[in-house]
Amino acid sequence: MIKTDILIIGAGPTGLFTVFEAGLLKLKCHLIDALPQPGGQCSEIYPKKPIYDIPGFPEVLAGDLTANLLEQGRQFEPGFTLGERAETIEKQEDGSFIVTTNKGTQHQAPVVAIAGGLGSFEPRKPKIENIAYYEDKGVEYFIKDPEVYRDKKVVISGGGDSALDWSVFLTDVASQVTLVHRRNEFRGALDSVEKVQELKKQGKINLITPAEVTALHGNNKLEGITVTKEGEKILLETDHFIPLFGLSPKLGPIGDWGLEIVKNAIKVDTLDYQTNIPGIFAIGDVNTYEGKLKLILCGFHEATLMCQSAYKIINPGKKYVLKYTTVSGIDGFDGTRKEAPKAVVQSIN
Amino acid sequence: MIKTDILIIGAGPTGLFTVFEAGLLKLKCHLIDALPQPGGQCSEIYPKKPIYDIPGFPEVLAGDLTANLLEQGRQFEPGFTLGERAETIEKQEDGSFIVTTNKGTQHQAPVVAIAGGLGSFEPRKPKIENIAYYEDKGVEYFIKDPEVYRDKKVVISGGGDSALDWSVFLTDVASQVTLVHRRNEFRGALDSVEKVQELKKQGKINLITPAEVTALHGNNKLEGITVTKEGEKILLETDHFIPLFGLSPKLGPIGDWGLEIVKNAIKVDTLDYQTNIPGIFAIGDVNTYEGKLKLILCGFHEATLMCQSAYKIINPGKKYVLKYTTVSGIDGFDGTRKEAPKAVVQSIN
Repeated sequence: MIKTDILIIGAGPTGLFTVFEAGLLKLKCHLIDALPQPGGQCSEIYPKKPIYDIPGFPEVLAGDLTANLLEQGRQFEPGFTLGERAETIEKQEDGSFIVTTNKGTQHQAPVVAIAGGLGSFEPRKPKIENIAYYEDKGVEYFIKDPEVYRDKKVVISGGGDSALDWSVFLTDVASQVTLVHRRNEFRGALDSVEKVQELKKQGKINLITPAEVTALHGNNKLEGITVTKEGEKILLETDHFIPLFGLSPKLGPIGDWGLEIVKNAIKVDTLDYQTNIPGIFAIGDVNTYEGKLKLILCGFHEATLMCQSAYKIINPGKKYVLKYTTVSGIDGFDGTRKEAPKAVVQSIN
Repeated sequence: MIKTDILIIGAGPTGLFTVFEAGLLKLKCHLIDALPQPGGQCSEIYPKKPIYDIPGFPEVLAGDLTANLLEQGRQFEPGFTLGERAETIEKQEDGSFIVTTNKGTQHQAPVVAIAGGLGSFEPRKPKIENIAYYEDKGVEYFIKDPEVYRDKKVVISGGGDSALDWSVFLTDVASQVTLVHRRNEFRGALDSVEKVQELKKQGKINLITPAEVTALHGNNKLEGITVTKEGEKILLETDHFIPLFGLSPKLGPIGDWGLEIVKNAIKVDTLDYQTNIPGIFAIGDVNTYEGKLKLILCGFHEATLMCQSAYKIINPGKKYVLKYTTVSGIDGFDGTRKEAPKAVVQSIN
């Protein structure tokens, strides 16, 4: 059982900033995310795209914003359960909650903060008979650890940035890379398309278009696939099949937690962004209230106010007095201290 | 008469970020501030101090944050009335407001956003008879333009960073720099204290401590001062006397505008941070509501939500649909455009 002060569902920018604000109040955080890395959409969907509306950044790449937020919270040593989806929640007699993921990992905390963005990002799966049987037996919808593919035969399917970029990346890792796409045209960053073109000419990527993977074969694990190209069936040996058809956000199991849901978002009070269940908060794009804007900067504010109420729940009767970091500095849970240079008092003779 | 869409009282971080958010809604802003430069406290009180709690910045100097916010809003060409204090407000028949400063500058706008921080920063003045008479005739409490002191005799009084830093700076500008402080000890950044020590040894700063300026002399303008040092009176010729004794924030004339004031702050509705007077909003440290935290990041959120309501007041009946800057890009009022690189659609052969 993983125990923490604030259990955060969703490791996007709002969830990551919560770690910092909670840390200032000496509260520890643990984050659960269905994606294999922190950052939410910023990391998974558009890491190389610029964002223009984060206050103080005339321009920042979404991936860099994630890195900065991780760095800002590092002193407070957050825990992570990644690549797992929060599935069920149970209130305990002592008022705390136990949240269990789809892989059975259990977490306990007196406060739960849902920072779930548009929901958990579920991969769009191709409609192939028996594909569920081969999941985790050669079929993967995310690449968590590229080393899994070292010296293996890999088939990637898809026509966007993920399919292009991973095909390029895996040419240095896998023994064979095949890219299958149902059109001749790819949609992605210009340099990604050009790199695939170049690697195809060098024979390092085996490109099959316009084509679709239509069947999977193998005993106990994936051993081969059938590709259908303009009516003709091609049988290919492969160790892995990775369909990268994009992600679609789903509110998912959280929708069954007894929270008040309005238009696919969780209704909260603007005092502290608490839901209809005391102790469960919802912050960032996943919540809704009158005048709500789904902007990252609003999630930052909501996270900050939420932490104040979390403090009161976790430390009943104790009063917290706001201290400014510029004046008081920051003491990390890891023993590090940040502080502004102090003024000296000195005579001049 | 200066006319604009949103008249912002206070050019601190919250006021500056309002320019950007308003610009996204095609609303133009003009800012009034009593200080001679934008940035509020961040520029005037602690430009070289690090702030640790701006989301996405593990550490940022207050002066750099100001520069970034100015850059972020630059495309939307804000106007500035600096070194003047907003004094009176009058509602017009057409629903707009006219705001007049202490120097008589008039501004008209349908929406007023008070982003006044802790209030207007008023200099602490030494208790010297007739000092008011010499104000703007040789006595100044801020240095707006150092060139005013070119080849002049200057006396600075004070023992903190401002007094130290300006004494150092003016040795290259003024014909004579005298620094008077009531103690031998100075309180400031180590390198500022050391520089003054060095310049004193070189005879470039005339240091008189422990001493106080006790009288001012001159017909029509300042011509000399009396310094009292351990009971002894010294008469010094000077063109300028600049007491730098710090600033103290005062809510000031805004307190008489008919707004609901609670504990020196302006009461607002959390829906859009509007005050009890429709069309007048209060954002950032100057406002108060249940759960309010006086943090810069909260001001950013408040400014953003406020702009939505400002849009509705300025464009009655029109509906605004939120667009993401990463997707839609930004069109500045200055003709510039920012946008994320687009994906290409291209065949691979």
